[in-house]
Amino acid sequence: MIGIDWGTSAFRAYRLGAGGEILESRAAPKGILAVPAGKFADVLQDEIGDWLDQKPVVMSGMVGSRQGWVEAPYVPCPAGFAEISGAMRQVREGVWVVPGVSCRDAAGVPDVMRGEEVQILGAGRDGLFCLPGTHSKWVEVEDGRITRFSTHMTGEVYAVLKQHSILGRMMEEGTPDTNAFAQGVARSGQGGGVLHHLFGVRTRGLMGELGPAASASYLSGILIGHELRNARARDVHLLGAPALTRLYEEAAGLLSVTARPMDPDAAARGLFRLGGMLR
Amino acid sequence: MIGIDWGTSAFRAYRLGAGGEILESRAAPKGILAVPAGKFADVLQDEIGDWLDQKPVVMSGMVGSRQGWVEAPYVPCPAGFAEISGAMRQVREGVWVVPGVSCRDAAGVPDVMRGEEVQILGAGRDGLFCLPGTHSKWVEVEDGRITRFSTHMTGEVYAVLKQHSILGRMMEEGTPDTNAFAQGVARSGQGGGVLHHLFGVRTRGLMGELGPAASASYLSGILIGHELRNARARDVHLLGAPALTRLYEEAAGLLSVTARPMDPDAAARGLFRLGGMLR
Repeated sequence: MIGIDWGTSAFRAYRLGAGGEILESRAAPKGILAVPAGKFADVLQDEIGDWLDQKPVVMSGMVGSRQGWVEAPYVPCPAGFAEISGAMRQVREGVWVVPGVSCRDAAGVPDVMRGEEVQILGAGRDGLFCLPGTHSKWVEVEDGRITRFSTHMTGEVYAVLKQHSILGRMMEEGTPDTNAFAQGVARSGQGGGVLHHLFGVRTRGLMGELGPAASASYLSGILIGHELRNARARDVHLLGAPALTRLYEEAAGLLSVTARPMDPDAAARGLFRLGGMLR
Repeated sequence: MIGIDWGTSAFRAYRLGAGGEILESRAAPKGILAVPAGKFADVLQDEIGDWLDQKPVVMSGMVGSRQGWVEAPYVPCPAGFAEISGAMRQVREGVWVVPGVSCRDAAGVPDVMRGEEVQILGAGRDGLFCLPGTHSKWVEVEDGRITRFSTHMTGEVYAVLKQHSILGRMMEEGTPDTNAFAQGVARSGQGGGVLHHLFGVRTRGLMGELGPAASASYLSGILIGHELRNARARDVHLLGAPALTRLYEEAAGLLSVTARPMDPDAAARGLFRLGGMLR
């Protein structure tokens, strides 16, 4: 079978063997934002046309959103492989779109994910998961089902502040500064709140206490520190790109949280499980 | 004398009488970012050349920053009229630049202001002041001196999220939605932290619970709510533009904080006091 993680900005395809082993994989910057309306089948053909004699093709991520190939409505929590596979949508013979998952917190505010659910369930274990990124996910899995989760806009807030706010004016790309990052994580535990802590990135720069590269690391430490403290975790499985995962591990260590990096091929394993449920 | 509040984006001049009364005032979008290097005297001549037979001219705000006419180094807290007037810098005969004020919190992180100190001292009373804006200031005045303060990047975070993040994609300018604003203020008191609450702006929009105009008000309520809660005030003097001040009054009311709007001419009164100390 073929498993595809088709997100907002990236397309990742896995050709999988009978036991779920990855025989071949391909990636392209063909996320759904790069696909013209109605052209999903063409992109699929362009990228992995030579694999398409293998079926089924199971696709997770934003490809199932309103802006994707077809909208596969969110499955409410608790959701495991059974609930998710039961809500997959077939877009053509043997080609399936996986739905996302939704939940509501105690106050009734909704939260959603698309794609992360397949990675998390593919990891094959219970516990608390963190998937750092533009929109970081914190996800609780119990008895093989996602029971609740919450999204933090950490990565996007970091990016817009760096690119578009006064804080970015004094920053330069450079080697991450471990010491400044740790100072930011410590700052996140002090009084005043994150909106106040952010201004310290500017004032410490003004006072000559932070250089242009250190400023970006300090900002990152403040934001990741706030995310980790608010998640109130003691023990978490980390699933994500290595560079970002390392930052979260570093912050977790400073806050005495046990963080365990997980196998990054979890998405392929989750897609394989869903493909098996179609037979 | 002449008093000028010369900030990043605006130039506001007051011609003042012998008792401090405002005889005439002018405003122009000639903030320091709109002034070419070395051209401050020319802009002053263009804007109020016909007033310049009156002296002294006292100028506060970013005109005294490194990017301004001349840098007037920050005066550390505690700072009242005496400390500030003692650190004014003369740029030409009878034309003076007012320094900003700095402080450090318990953790040693610096904070700064330029211009707000003149408005606050001009208000002529002790207590806690809030000046909402791009960089909101919370300022404690005791015995006529600023003893400590903190800056919150509320306005700038709101602007960059609205203009540059995924949250802004679903927003439209519209009549402020009082109900959605109140929901945002309430949300700021729930678990998960501001980075999580922000994502709810998107998910509530996705689920059809918030329209495009209501989304902006909900975002504003979340951010202002977090600012107010972190300031831990019970009683505050509000000093700022009427539309923004009304939002803060509304949020304060929802959080049982007593908020008292102050006379917006406080800057002119503060400049007059500083001018008097030059004689």
